[in-house]
Amino acid sequence: MKESLRYALLEAQLELARRASRSVVLVVTGHAAAGKTALINELNHRLENRLTEVHALAPSSEERERPYWWRYWRRLPARGRVGVFVHGWYGDALFARAEQRLGEGAFRDRLAEIRAFEAELAAEGVAIVKLWLDIDRDVQGRHLKALWHDPERAWQVKEHDWQRHLQHDALAALGREMRRATEADHAPWHRLAGGPGETPIKALAHRLVAAMAGPLPEVEPPAGRPATGVGAPPRLADLDDASPEAMDKASYRERLREAQARLAGNAREMQRRRIPVVLVFEGQDAAGKGGCIHRLTSALDARQYRVHRIAAPSDEERAHPWAWRFWRRLPLDGRVAVFDRSWYGRVLVERVEGLAEPAEWRRGYDEIRRFERQLLAHGAVLGKLFLAVDKDEQLRRFRSRAETPHKRHKLTEEDWRNRERWDDYRRAIDDMFVHTHDVDGGWALIDANDKRRARLAVLDHVNRLLEARLAEPR
Amino acid sequence: MKESLRYALLEAQLELARRASRSVVLVVTGHAAAGKTALINELNHRLENRLTEVHALAPSSEERERPYWWRYWRRLPARGRVGVFVHGWYGDALFARAEQRLGEGAFRDRLAEIRAFEAELAAEGVAIVKLWLDIDRDVQGRHLKALWHDPERAWQVKEHDWQRHLQHDALAALGREMRRATEADHAPWHRLAGGPGETPIKALAHRLVAAMAGPLPEVEPPAGRPATGVGAPPRLADLDDASPEAMDKASYRERLREAQARLAGNAREMQRRRIPVVLVFEGQDAAGKGGCIHRLTSALDARQYRVHRIAAPSDEERAHPWAWRFWRRLPLDGRVAVFDRSWYGRVLVERVEGLAEPAEWRRGYDEIRRFERQLLAHGAVLGKLFLAVDKDEQLRRFRSRAETPHKRHKLTEEDWRNRERWDDYRRAIDDMFVHTHDVDGGWALIDANDKRRARLAVLDHVNRLLEARLAEPR
Repeated sequence: MKESLRYALLEAQLELARRASRSVVLVVTGHAAAGKTALINELNHRLENRLTEVHALAPSSEERERPYWWRYWRRLPARGRVGVFVHGWYGDALFARAEQRLGEGAFRDRLAEIRAFEAELAAEGVAIVKLWLDIDRDVQGRHLKALWHDPERAWQVKEHDWQRHLQHDALAALGREMRRATEADHAPWHRLAGGPGETPIKALAHRLVAAMAGPLPEVEPPAGRPATGVGAPPRLADLDDASPEAMDKASYRERLREAQARLAGNAREMQRRRIPVVLVFEGQDAAGKGGCIHRLTSALDARQYRVHRIAAPSDEERAHPWAWRFWRRLPLDGRVAVFDRSWYGRVLVERVEGLAEPAEWRRGYDEIRRFERQLLAHGAVLGKLFLAVDKDEQLRRFRSRAETPHKRHKLTEEDWRNRERWDDYRRAIDDMFVHTHDVDGGWALIDANDKRRARLAVLDHVNRLLEARLAEPR
Repeated sequence: MKESLRYALLEAQLELARRASRSVVLVVTGHAAAGKTALINELNHRLENRLTEVHALAPSSEERERPYWWRYWRRLPARGRVGVFVHGWYGDALFARAEQRLGEGAFRDRLAEIRAFEAELAAEGVAIVKLWLDIDRDVQGRHLKALWHDPERAWQVKEHDWQRHLQHDALAALGREMRRATEADHAPWHRLAGGPGETPIKALAHRLVAAMAGPLPEVEPPAGRPATGVGAPPRLADLDDASPEAMDKASYRERLREAQARLAGNAREMQRRRIPVVLVFEGQDAAGKGGCIHRLTSALDARQYRVHRIAAPSDEERAHPWAWRFWRRLPLDGRVAVFDRSWYGRVLVERVEGLAEPAEWRRGYDEIRRFERQLLAHGAVLGKLFLAVDKDEQLRRFRSRAETPHKRHKLTEEDWRNRERWDDYRRAIDDMFVHTHDVDGGWALIDANDKRRARLAVLDHVNRLLEARLAEPR
């Protein structure tokens, strides 16, 4: 590589780190023996390696026990940094298809997921560069043999390299299909000649400089599947005429005990079958989320669940795409994660308070749907509960909080400010229902004006969800 | 539990969260069928579970591939939060000893490690509560049988519970030894009666309130093993009379190529044998750490190593004991972690700039020695290199950086400020050598006044370390 290009690369990277407004993701895939390893090593020596992370995956048990994309989300570089993925999600798809572990349809689904994943990253300020290294079949064979016979370099040849040599033409065809399906301005493919005698480093360096320092391309939004619906989405207005009678304490206690016993048994069975459970609680301030969660977790083994209260992101979280902080909290198989507020903040508080641009929260619906489909595809049970109170009831509860010493901490200035935007929130909530009331991810709208009824409704809903899953043939 | 105690507990926890100046760690261990699970569940229902984390460990592959204590460090609660460990490090020691997986001496070593671990946490503002649940042998037997015959609760009885019943008296004796060896004001044991009819929750709640809201006890420093030494520690003055001749470019290039080829082979073998390598680079500003690291990593496969540049901690890091941010960066087996600056900042920059109190950096020596012994005990190769330049050479390099456009980013105001404290740093560096030049963790003091010689010396030192390990019988 020419010295000037080398300095340009280094300077672009230092500027990237200094501004820390975007990160760069490079994926390198392609044929065996095309010089992938040598290229990445050479590149890595040209980069400031204190700002670079190289990932070649052999999934750990912690990764296998979570949705597929978790392993990549957790490895996304922070703003200002470069992440290099060897084969990455493309290798997973390509080799699984070539080895018939993915059917034709599943392969296409995966490519669509990849497209959507990359669009989401790009929209969040990740500059993506994708490299396919080509090599002629005969050259590949000769090169593999030469390596194999050289005692110094024989270790470079892996068992699967021979396999991939035999499948060269099939892999070439699959690679073409893959590249065509995932080509985008915001995540362009570069097909370079590899193998002995080729030096693709220069071409790659040019592309990286552009990714680090050039203008970020417009993101082409993926053709998102709309919510497919499980009947009509709920609407807050559905509750307007309801006026639940207060339930008497004795029958509440009895029914609560029954529901909790039922939940304890269901949860134990989920743990035994290693099915993860993700429960989302949203609701207006003072709707009683905390109380409902408390009654729910009281029935669970403390070792099985974790409650995640979602507040302002940490600085590490702010340095990553917005959904990163939810991905990192996903439970292992057999565990229960309860979210007290959730990713829906993107289309609720962030929308209403102007913390996200309209373009950002609007694409949030699609990102959320895809996030939740990942959970479902991994086999998780997903429950989404919205606790709704009317405006008068909220005021009564605010006043009661203000007057009761051990409840005063629950009431903040922010609660009063949010209350002034009651109608804006109402609109955002109904929009959220419309856009994210999805197959297996439907919202339960819970009338929370009577606390006892609300708690029982929450337990019943969760019990029904778990029982529906447990009734499925294994 | 009385309502007043319940409110006291909740209020103490909310205050803990609001102030976020300490965290609370609770370990619950003891005999089988003594009601550990029920107690933790009941406690968890009394606590604000959005601020509590319960950990019952089944180590993952990511945990097994790192030093033993990594699994607990990564699970330490942030300031303001409560972490509950079911059996935790005590269960590990107790059952391993009872099942003869730990010998008598190794058991005692483990107890000493525990004592030191807890002292370190306590000194960093972690309030520790330890609970041993007792039960009479006969009562235990009857209770296990009763559970076993109750279809609703038979699942609570595990295979190992019977084993532990048979070993009741041996476990009781080991428990006594364990508690005696790890008793401390800053991490007191509470032995409570468990089993049917006992309700230890009240006593536990009182202790937790004290841990959350009471004064933090004085920490009794563990009797730290001093550095055992591998010959005399180096001193900066050793280099004062040296004036290395500049090395000519041609012979440098040749020797560099040789050393890198040697390193490439050694590193590959470390990977094959799954031995982790941790390399620490310290040195004055402009001593050439970056250049040395670059020559070193140039010989490595990019997929094998990661360079960690240690700068200011993130807010998540600041919410944990100081060493947490180094623990989280430890490599998997077979990988190489290169630290560009390191945990030694505790006794260098933090000492000199007054970022740590004298008591804090002074105990840092012992904490560092124990941290490094953990690495070694796990089988890692640890290399610590200090690159030293003299004051004139530093000035020449600062000026050259100021004058060269593509090097200007390397020179900051801070570098000039640090230079004013040259002698303070010199004292801190020599003290560091004295206190942390340990068996298998010895410092290599590298004369960095000639860059070429320094780079070769670094490569030679690392090669010798790796070769020494590879020469050991397996």
